[in-house]
Amino acid sequence: MLQLSQRIPHLQASPIREILAVIERPGMISFAGGLPSPDSFPQLRTDNIPERMLQYGASEGEPELRAQICRDMQSIGLDCTPGQVLILSGSQQGIDLCAKLFVDHNTPIALENPTYLAALQVFRFFGARFVELDPMLPEVALSQKPPIPFCYVIPTFQNPTGRCYTSTMREHLAEACMQRGTVLFEDDPYRDLVYEPCERRPICSYLRSGNWIYQGSFSKSFAPGLRLGFLVCSEALVPYLTRLKQAADLHSNRLSQYLVLQQLQDPQREQRMEQLRMNYLQKRDYFAASLQQTLAPYAEWEVPAGGLFFWLKLKTNTDTQALLARAIDHGVAFMPGEPFFYSRHDEHSYIRLNFSHANETAISAGLTTLGELLSQTSTRT
Amino acid sequence: MLQLSQRIPHLQASPIREILAVIERPGMISFAGGLPSPDSFPQLRTDNIPERMLQYGASEGEPELRAQICRDMQSIGLDCTPGQVLILSGSQQGIDLCAKLFVDHNTPIALENPTYLAALQVFRFFGARFVELDPMLPEVALSQKPPIPFCYVIPTFQNPTGRCYTSTMREHLAEACMQRGTVLFEDDPYRDLVYEPCERRPICSYLRSGNWIYQGSFSKSFAPGLRLGFLVCSEALVPYLTRLKQAADLHSNRLSQYLVLQQLQDPQREQRMEQLRMNYLQKRDYFAASLQQTLAPYAEWEVPAGGLFFWLKLKTNTDTQALLARAIDHGVAFMPGEPFFYSRHDEHSYIRLNFSHANETAISAGLTTLGELLSQTSTRT
Repeated sequence: MLQLSQRIPHLQASPIREILAVIERPGMISFAGGLPSPDSFPQLRTDNIPERMLQYGASEGEPELRAQICRDMQSIGLDCTPGQVLILSGSQQGIDLCAKLFVDHNTPIALENPTYLAALQVFRFFGARFVELDPMLPEVALSQKPPIPFCYVIPTFQNPTGRCYTSTMREHLAEACMQRGTVLFEDDPYRDLVYEPCERRPICSYLRSGNWIYQGSFSKSFAPGLRLGFLVCSEALVPYLTRLKQAADLHSNRLSQYLVLQQLQDPQREQRMEQLRMNYLQKRDYFAASLQQTLAPYAEWEVPAGGLFFWLKLKTNTDTQALLARAIDHGVAFMPGEPFFYSRHDEHSYIRLNFSHANETAISAGLTTLGELLSQTSTRT
Repeated sequence: MLQLSQRIPHLQASPIREILAVIERPGMISFAGGLPSPDSFPQLRTDNIPERMLQYGASEGEPELRAQICRDMQSIGLDCTPGQVLILSGSQQGIDLCAKLFVDHNTPIALENPTYLAALQVFRFFGARFVELDPMLPEVALSQKPPIPFCYVIPTFQNPTGRCYTSTMREHLAEACMQRGTVLFEDDPYRDLVYEPCERRPICSYLRSGNWIYQGSFSKSFAPGLRLGFLVCSEALVPYLTRLKQAADLHSNRLSQYLVLQQLQDPQREQRMEQLRMNYLQKRDYFAASLQQTLAPYAEWEVPAGGLFFWLKLKTNTDTQALLARAIDHGVAFMPGEPFFYSRHDEHSYIRLNFSHANETAISAGLTTLGELLSQTSTRT
């Protein structure tokens, strides 16, 4: 008798959220989520919180925080005003708002394959049809008929692959969007976690016309538990996204907005970020060395220039869900690669390993376990 | 060229949010929002915040908070388990999740007329068709063909009318929902703000079959800036709402969850709530006396037994939007009644006045100004 929306058959659980529920078990070594290292969290400055932060606030966010983010965006090349900045309850919310803005049943969206699975979850739910965007040849996807209203990309330390677009790739995508009138939705949660020199200028900053949404997160550089992110968008989109934000949760948590603003205006900010990058670089290198010792016979990978993940292509076709089940039994969690793909055109198996959360002892032990399990794993039939 | 969703033409700004942006001006006397009194906010206990609150958390919410809310719900007659409790980023989010779960283009929803305007905003956006629910005769609306998948009600100190359902009305609505298989969505943000004895038992607790969602808020009894609410639902709805929550923002702010749990488990909790009720009762009575002195020639009202609002029926047909513009020029804000109605069948004009936010001096001054403006207002042509 329950009459649910026609969207509901497209509502899938997020595999990563399901796994996160499991890894809360004590002693579990997790390479699964994109969890920051617990020792990366800054000291919260909870003294002197202004009382007005407890009252209802503006849907767009705190004016001081919007102005600070605007200055930060200008410093990375994105021309904008504070009025174009919208504070989000985490950048996942930006995906929900954009899906509401653009996606009806059967609306085509161009995106990388593989890509962030919780974005796939939201776009699917609203009925999107996916068109593969090859970042080397973006005009192929964007010249399709009927026209594609928007494309979603993670150009900098992509999730799950870790890939970072070159400046040429950025230019090409921007040109293709301008030519076709495609709205560019650039998701950029990892940009601050950079370990090697590489191009990180927002693709949105290459646009000379058209509409765009650039999205950032404070979950990776500050603290995910505070659930705070932001988007900046072309002026034409501001009123729509503001109203969608109103309707979604009135406004974002003001205490989090206050705490994040303190961090952004801390004189030690750059020093803290540099420290974070150094810690993660060291972890990345430790992880790479451990991988070489344990998984080289079973997989191939590139060492990522930024972000939080190694993306492994397994040498034999493997049932990674079954592997995960066995790994969890042995106290280790990782992300199977398959849910990141919305369509498959090779028979390889992939796994995504996070290197930021576990400590060095756990990394060695966990990768050793994974190696043992892979050595016992037969090719999938 | 911008290709937006077919939903977007139904996306309206929330009038209350627009007014809230104006009333941030210094010196403005606001009777507009449902803003708690600033002196009602508890002292935050921000020392000893566990570090894990900064990490990603469970989509469903913190287990301890869910367990505490479950105990609280049982104490008011709602039979449930902690697994049926979902923590929300404010109760507005629950409306968004339920709209996603139930509402397609042209889906009929039964609701009170007038009702909470930000609920109307969300339901309209998803394409709902509204069917008027008369709380005295709920079976009339719910027996319509095609069947109505869900009804949305605020039975306790309704927004905007302040009305509280009797136990007979509660029984009738529950019976009608059970007979017709209509899902009951009971929004209950004001229940703790009670000033006179009246029936407040959740209607969901009268149901012996069928599906239901009961929603509560910490914005009125604790602090809206923390953006925390919750819902409890029948077991069949748990997996859907959990996944919708995942997709919307991964999970709610953990710091807020921690701070609210501290308050709920504070030995002084009942004493603080009693103090809050006493303060608001005193304000309500002061407001009622001031109203009598200033607006009696122009309007009729009942003194509400709970909640935050007086609902005034103006004696002459008045353009309340024009009145609001003039009032704002004179430093006073209120809510015109019209946006709370989704269809009109009388020619009366209404205004909603909040009594919790302004102090006594401001109440007297603001109502005097409103009285003067109404004395100069001619009947709308």
